Amino acid sequence: MKKKLGELAAWVGGTVVGDDEVEISGVAAIDVAQAGEITFIAHPKFLPKFAETKASAVIVSKEIPSSQKPLLCVNNPYLAFAKILTLFSQKSYQPKGIDPNTWISPTAQLGQEITIFPFVLIGERCRIGDRVTLYPGVFVGEDSSIGEESVLYPNVSIYPKTVIGKRVILHSGVVVGADGFGYVKEGKKNVKIPQMGKVEIEDDVEIGANTTIDRATLGKTIIRRGVKIDNLVQVAHNVVIGEDSIIVAQVGIAGSTKIGSNVILAGQAGVADHIEIGDNVMVGAQSGVGHDLTSNQAYSGSPAFPHREWLRASTAFPKLPEMRKALMAIERRLKKIEEALSSEGKEK
Amino acid sequence: MKKKLGELAAWVGGTVVGDDEVEISGVAAIDVAQAGEITFIAHPKFLPKFAETKASAVIVSKEIPSSQKPLLCVNNPYLAFAKILTLFSQKSYQPKGIDPNTWISPTAQLGQEITIFPFVLIGERCRIGDRVTLYPGVFVGEDSSIGEESVLYPNVSIYPKTVIGKRVILHSGVVVGADGFGYVKEGKKNVKIPQMGKVEIEDDVEIGANTTIDRATLGKTIIRRGVKIDNLVQVAHNVVIGEDSIIVAQVGIAGSTKIGSNVILAGQAGVADHIEIGDNVMVGAQSGVGHDLTSNQAYSGSPAFPHREWLRASTAFPKLPEMRKALMAIERRLKKIEEALSSEGKEK
Amino acid sequence: MKKKLGELAAWVGGTVVGDDEVEISGVAAIDVAQAGEITFIAHPKFLPKFAETKASAVIVSKEIPSSQKPLLCVNNPYLAFAKILTLFSQKSYQPKGIDPNTWISPTAQLGQEITIFPFVLIGERCRIGDRVTLYPGVFVGEDSSIGEESVLYPNVSIYPKTVIGKRVILHSGVVVGADGFGYVKEGKKNVKIPQMGKVEIEDDVEIGANTTIDRATLGKTIIRRGVKIDNLVQVAHNVVIGEDSIIVAQVGIAGSTKIGSNVILAGQAGVADHIEIGDNVMVGAQSGVGHDLTSNQAYSGSPAFPHREWLRASTAFPKLPEMRKALMAIERRLKKIEEALSSEGKEK
Repeated sequence: MKKKLGELAAWVGGTVVGDDEVEISGVAAIDVAQAGEITFIAHPKFLPKFAETKASAVIVSKEIPSSQKPLLCVNNPYLAFAKILTLFSQKSYQPKGIDPNTWISPTAQLGQEITIFPFVLIGERCRIGDRVTLYPGVFVGEDSSIGEESVLYPNVSIYPKTVIGKRVILHSGVVVGADGFGYVKEGKKNVKIPQMGKVEIEDDVEIGANTTIDRATLGKTIIRRGVKIDNLVQVAHNVVIGEDSIIVAQVGIAGSTKIGSNVILAGQAGVADHIEIGDNVMVGAQSGVGHDLTSNQAYSGSPAFPHREWLRASTAFPKLPEMRKALMAIERRLKKIEEALSSEGKEK
Repeated sequence: MKKKLGELAAWVGGTVVGDDEVEISGVAAIDVAQAGEITFIAHPKFLPKFAETKASAVIVSKEIPSSQKPLLCVNNPYLAFAKILTLFSQKSYQPKGIDPNTWISPTAQLGQEITIFPFVLIGERCRIGDRVTLYPGVFVGEDSSIGEESVLYPNVSIYPKTVIGKRVILHSGVVVGADGFGYVKEGKKNVKIPQMGKVEIEDDVEIGANTTIDRATLGKTIIRRGVKIDNLVQVAHNVVIGEDSIIVAQVGIAGSTKIGSNVILAGQAGVADHIEIGDNVMVGAQSGVGHDLTSNQAYSGSPAFPHREWLRASTAFPKLPEMRKALMAIERRLKKIEEALSSEGKEK
Repeated sequence: MKKKLGELAAWVGGTVVGDDEVEISGVAAIDVAQAGEITFIAHPKFLPKFAETKASAVIVSKEIPSSQKPLLCVNNPYLAFAKILTLFSQKSYQPKGIDPNTWISPTAQLGQEITIFPFVLIGERCRIGDRVTLYPGVFVGEDSSIGEESVLYPNVSIYPKTVIGKRVILHSGVVVGADGFGYVKEGKKNVKIPQMGKVEIEDDVEIGANTTIDRATLGKTIIRRGVKIDNLVQVAHNVVIGEDSIIVAQVGIAGSTKIGSNVILAGQAGVADHIEIGDNVMVGAQSGVGHDLTSNQAYSGSPAFPHREWLRASTAFPKLPEMRKALMAIERRLKKIEEALSSEGKEK
C-alpha cells in the first residue's frame, strides 16, 4: 500500500509543509527509516536525528525551518504516528470459518463470518458475535457471550456467564471469571464463600497476556468501555474499573475496589480492597494504595501519598543514616552547651 | 430450592428471632436483596441499611431491638452467609464421562464417574480419582495422581510425578511442577541444576488462576491441607506451606522457604529463600521478608519488621523532608549558641 | 546407571581423596542421601552434617582431615553437584513423532526426529528444528521458527513472526509475542499503537511458567543467549536483555529498557521504561529502578540506589518515629538554652 503525504495529512488532520505528492509506503523509527517511509519526532530530544534520517517525510509538531524534507505538521506527532501505522498495518479481516476439530454446543448461537480455530470449546447457550476470532485452546464457558469483532488469542479461559463486549481483545492466557478469593475462618479452617457473581467486560477493552479477572461473589466485576489492561494484572472479585483507565503490568487490585475513569495505575502498583480511586488519578509504579484517593491527583509510595511529597521524601530517604548521625552529634553538642551553661550558673 | 428460616438456623447453628417459617430462596447483599432472599450484616457500618432492605430475613450477630423482620442470630454472620450461600448454590455433581477427543494413556487408571472434557491429555501411569473433573486443555504429565472430587479448570498444566489430593481446585492456567529456577555460574554461563524433585498438593487446597508452583530440585515442594492460594502467585522449588495458610494474589515465595500453618501473606508480598515463617504470622501487603519471622505476630514493610512499628515509621516517612529542614535549622541555632558562648568565654 | 567416583571426578574436573573405585548411582542432599549416593557440602554451615551422612562419597571444596569417606574435591561443590546431577538425570531423547490430532500447516517446515503432542497448532510457513518437542496446547503462530532441541511445555503461546533459538526451554503458559502495551490518548480515549515488531529469543534461553514477553512496536524485543527468566515475569515491548542475565520471578521490565549482560534482577523488582542497566549489575528484590544503572554495582530500594547505602537507610527506617521524637526534644532543649542565654544577655 502506498499513500501520498497529502492523503496521510487528511487521515490524521494535519498540514503538509513541502511536497504533498511524495509517496509513503510505511512507518519506521527515525534512525532506521528508509526512503519511502515516514517517521516522526515526538520529543525535542530526537530533533538532532532529523538531519540524518533517510525517511521521505517526517511528522512534527512544529515546522522545522529550512527543512529539505516534506513535513507533516500535527498537534500530537505520536498520535499521528499511531494512526498512520494503523492505516498501513491493517489487514482486512478474512473469516476462516469453524474448524471441525472443535467442540461447540448445539445450543450456542454463532454469528456471521466468524473464525474458530481447532481445539476450541464453546459451552451451552453461548452467544458468539459476528466476525469474532477464537484462537486454539480458547474455552468459553456456558451462558457466556462475546460481542462482534472481538479476538480471543490462544489458551484464553472464559468461565461461565461472562459477558464480553464488542471489539474486545484478550491476549493469550487471560483468565476471566475464575472464582474470587473469598473464605471465612471457622476456627483455623478456611470455609469457601461460593463465588456466584460474574464478570462483564465492555466494548473496546484490551487485556494483556496471563492477566486474571475474577468473578464477583454476588453481583458483577466490571471492566468498563475502553479500559486497557497490561500483562499479568490481577483484578479481584467485585472490582469496577472506569472508562478509559490504563492498568499497567503486574498491578493488583483487591476485592470490591472501585477505580474511576481515565485513571492510570503504573506497573506493580497494588490497591487494597474496598477502596475508591477518583477519576483521572495517577498512581506511581510499585505504589501501595490503602485508602481512598481523591480525583485529579498523582500519588506514589507504599503507603501512597501525593506524588510530589513522595518525590521529596524518597529523595531524603538515602540520607537517613546521615541524619541519625547528625542527630547524635547535635545531642553531644547540646549536652556540652548545657553543661557549660550549668557550670557557668554554678560559677556565678 | 426453598428453605424455611428455621431450617437455615439449624444448618448454620443459629437462632431465629421472629417467624421461623418464612421461606428463603436465595442470598443477596443488603442493598440488592429482594423479598424471598436472606441478607446479612457482617459489620456494624451496614446497620443503617437494615431499615431499607427488602430482604425477608437478616443474618445478624446481635438481636436488633424492635425489628419487624425475622432475624437469624449467629456468632459470625459472614460465616453463616457463606454456609447458606453454599447451600443454595451447590449443584449435585453430574459426571459427563470421557470425551472421545482426548488423549489418555492406556496405562492411566481412571476412577468412577469422572468428567474429562475434550483436548485433555493424561500421561502414562497417572491415577485419576473418582468424580474428578478435567476441563479442556488440561495436561496431566506421567506418573501424576489426582485425588477424588478434584477439579482442574481449563488449560491447567501438571508436570510429571505431581501428587494432588482430594477436593483440590486448580483454576485456569495454573502450572504445577515446572522446573525450579536453579543455576550455578561457571564463569559467566548459567549451568542448569536439574530439577529432579516433585510437588505434593494435599487435600482441600484451592489455587488461583495462573499461579505457578515449581517442582523441587531434590525432594518435594509441599502445599499442605487446606491452603488457599490466590491468582498469579509464585511458589518456588522446595517451599513448604503449612496447613490452612492463605496466600493472596501476586505473592512470591522463594526457594526452600517454610511457611507455618494458618499464616496470611497479603497481596504482592515477597519472601526470600531459605526463610522460616512461624505459625499464625500475618505479613502485610507488598512486604518483603528477608529473615525468619516468629510465630503469632504481624509484620509489614520491605524489609519487614513488626507491623505496629511499621505503621508508625511509614506515617513518619512523608515528614522526612521536613525533618531534614528541622535538622539544618537546629544546626544553625546550635552554631549561633556555640558562637555566643565562645565569645562570652573570650570576653571573660 | 552407576559411575565410579574416579569417573565422576573426571567429569567435573576434580580430584578424589580416598577410594576412587566406589560406585555411585545417584545424588542427594546431605541429610537424606543413602549408601550408593553422593552428596555435597556447598557451605561450611553444612559441615556438622558430614559425620552423619549415609552417602558413599561427598563433594567438598577442601579436604576434610581424617575423613573415613571418599571425598571429591573441587573448586565449586555446587557446580560439581549440578553437573553430576545432570549426568545421572539425563535421559536420551526419544522422538515420539507427530500425533495425528494436531493442526500443522502444509507450508510449515518440520525438522527430523521431532515430538509433537496432540492439540498443537503450527501456523503457515513456520520452521521447526530437529528434535524439537511441542507439548499439548502449544500454539505456534505463522512465520515463526523454533531452533533445534528446543522444548515448549504445555499451553505455550507463540505469536506470529517469533524467532526462537536452539535448546530453548519455554515452560507452561509462557506467552511470547503478544502485543506490547502501547496507546496514545486522543482526548480521554486510548488509541492503540499497532505492535508491528517481533520477538527474538536466542540460544540456550530458559523461560519460566506464565512469563510474558511482548512483541516490539517496531523492531525487536530481544532475549540474548543464555538468559534465564523465572516464572511470572513481564518483559515489555522493545526490551533487550543481555547474555547470561538472570531475571527472577515476578520481575517487570518496562518498554524499550536495555539490560546488560550477566545482570541479576532479584524477585519482584521493577524497571521503568527507556532505562539502561549496565553489565554485571545486581538489583535487589522488590527494588524499583527509575534511571540508568552503572555497570558492576549492586542496587536496592524503590527508587533504587547503591545497595550498601540502602542497607543502612533501611536499617534506620524503623527508627524514624524515635528520630522525630528526638528532634522535638532537641528543639525544646534548644529553646530553653536560647531563653537562658537571652535572659543572661539582658541580665548583663
